Amino acid sequence: MTPTSMPADAVLLTCGLFRTPNAKVAHGLVRGGERFRVRAVVDPVDAGCDAGQLLDGHRRDIPVVPTLTAALEYRPRYAVVGIATPGGRLTPQLRALLLEALEQGLSVVNGLHDFTQDDPGLVEMARFKGVELIDVRRPRPRSELRFWEGEALKVRAARIAVLGTDCAIGKRTTARLLTEALNGAGIRTEMIYTGQTGWMQGGRYGFILDSTPNDFVCGELERALVDCQQEVDPDVMVIEGQAALRNPSGPCGSEFILSGGAKGVVLQHAPGRVYFGGQEEVGIRLPTVEQEQELIRVLGGEVLAVTLHSEGLDQAGLMAAQQRLRQSTGLPVVRPLSEGLEEVVEAVRRHLQGGGA
Amino acid sequence: MTPTSMPADAVLLTCGLFRTPNAKVAHGLVRGGERFRVRAVVDPVDAGCDAGQLLDGHRRDIPVVPTLTAALEYRPRYAVVGIATPGGRLTPQLRALLLEALEQGLSVVNGLHDFTQDDPGLVEMARFKGVELIDVRRPRPRSELRFWEGEALKVRAARIAVLGTDCAIGKRTTARLLTEALNGAGIRTEMIYTGQTGWMQGGRYGFILDSTPNDFVCGELERALVDCQQEVDPDVMVIEGQAALRNPSGPCGSEFILSGGAKGVVLQHAPGRVYFGGQEEVGIRLPTVEQEQELIRVLGGEVLAVTLHSEGLDQAGLMAAQQRLRQSTGLPVVRPLSEGLEEVVEAVRRHLQGGGA
Repeated sequence: MTPTSMPADAVLLTCGLFRTPNAKVAHGLVRGGERFRVRAVVDPVDAGCDAGQLLDGHRRDIPVVPTLTAALEYRPRYAVVGIATPGGRLTPQLRALLLEALEQGLSVVNGLHDFTQDDPGLVEMARFKGVELIDVRRPRPRSELRFWEGEALKVRAARIAVLGTDCAIGKRTTARLLTEALNGAGIRTEMIYTGQTGWMQGGRYGFILDSTPNDFVCGELERALVDCQQEVDPDVMVIEGQAALRNPSGPCGSEFILSGGAKGVVLQHAPGRVYFGGQEEVGIRLPTVEQEQELIRVLGGEVLAVTLHSEGLDQAGLMAAQQRLRQSTGLPVVRPLSEGLEEVVEAVRRHLQGGGA
Repeated sequence: MTPTSMPADAVLLTCGLFRTPNAKVAHGLVRGGERFRVRAVVDPVDAGCDAGQLLDGHRRDIPVVPTLTAALEYRPRYAVVGIATPGGRLTPQLRALLLEALEQGLSVVNGLHDFTQDDPGLVEMARFKGVELIDVRRPRPRSELRFWEGEALKVRAARIAVLGTDCAIGKRTTARLLTEALNGAGIRTEMIYTGQTGWMQGGRYGFILDSTPNDFVCGELERALVDCQQEVDPDVMVIEGQAALRNPSGPCGSEFILSGGAKGVVLQHAPGRVYFGGQEEVGIRLPTVEQEQELIRVLGGEVLAVTLHSEGLDQAGLMAAQQRLRQSTGLPVVRPLSEGLEEVVEAVRRHLQGGGA
């Protein structure tokens, strides 16, 4: 399947986890995308609800159904794994569901670290039914991976990285909304995806950072930037960040500044989150916005604006945190899902006028 | 082959590059190691010389011979690729040499990104001769890779990371010398290797960072630290750094501090090197020691001492740079190969007494 084809009808499999952060792939695809048109979500826990309503209160006419069989009436071509499992493993429950999907003639799209193509039973069934097994996280063959050569730093477009203070904090959603908002304001912008959901949403330029062998990460980032430059030549490239600069399970982010040449940073933060997510028992506190701002400055970048995730706070708590951060940082601090990103667009515009490219 | 067996007789293949930084694998193995006993270096350019003499002026009775045939009289069991090629590719010249080695009944040890086991001709010859093809950079199967879980932060030993301001600047050599010096001073120390040469030198604990899928890097680091703790329980673990915190072709280093819990850092620097190595045409300047010190501080580490690589400077120039750095940083600044590491050992001792673990 090519990213420029029409969106393909798909169902998302979320195994009872739709209303948890583990379903962030599904959440991204419910929010939108050009590669798949989501027709239904298969999830026994929330069957009967509308997936958009559950996600953020906005109906999207995407029903949650209890079983794969119930989803077949929407005539999907693809069954997409919509959750992250511990360690990215293909659990027995999920494997059984994928086998059922293949038996029903659906192709399977899987972004776990375990590959369906390494499972002989799934391979045989896919072959028998003449359908595809797409393992999104499988990197290019080593012989096709490239090293960084410095071309990324010569790209004309200003590169803006959307970094976060933690994983699963809304970086991709903000990157996507910012790309839309900049285009809406007449600034020609492309998003550079770096995760599996970005690909699933139809991203044309990018790569999947976390499954790329470490030595090739910056070269693959460079390839995405250079290809985008040559084919689209936008004014801005919004780079989706991964993990967080200080995330102990896999610090990431300096490559966007040092190797990708991102001078401007939009920093996504959850003021109500205390510890790095998924490692609460380890008990390492999230950095403050000011600490992250300092680290980004030392690396050669500049935080242009802060965007907030509401986790753990009610509306009043979130707005209070927003006010405090506005005062302490002197930066635009916005709640993207409720306020939009106009203030961030203006910050990016000032950055461009200041020679941010 | 297991790391605890006797060193195996080996020849190193360096293809005319022995006297260049591309041969840093060979340099490490000539300096020493427990896995291989280097009997000869095959290199037409320097044939007739002693490899140790060429490397650092110290004879080691390792002859450089012009051809593989000439090396056979030393009855090697292994032929080790001793160079890095552009992009880690298996060049036609090198492949021909490996095929010849296999034909002569030698096993092949290869740390390039290209794997010999992916080359049908080499595989067939190895099978025919009953010898091994060892691709050092091949990571564990994905199903055996582990994620970071926080155990690394509970390790008893103080972890000291040897970071550098650039690639190929002497981090591994300093890490190895520091491990020896600490043990010599009665501080029980293990080295944690993170590169292919570390494995080839017989390192028992470590992993090869640059070929590990990005998402598993910190988990594999954790595994090395935890295994070392459980099996040896040393007082100090010296972690070999990779690349450099600001190296644009692949920034690396924050994981040792944030995920590995290294509080103390020994910083390796080449005051005579202007631009990041291998990217002179890109023209990005090396950071100063003070800039790197600031970045390490912001990440939560502390530079305990600076160690120098002489590249581009004569003895007088190096000593002048050493004096300047002593004054500007107030830290111990030493030339490991000529002065030894006693001052660094004392700095580590003070760090331990200050509760550095």
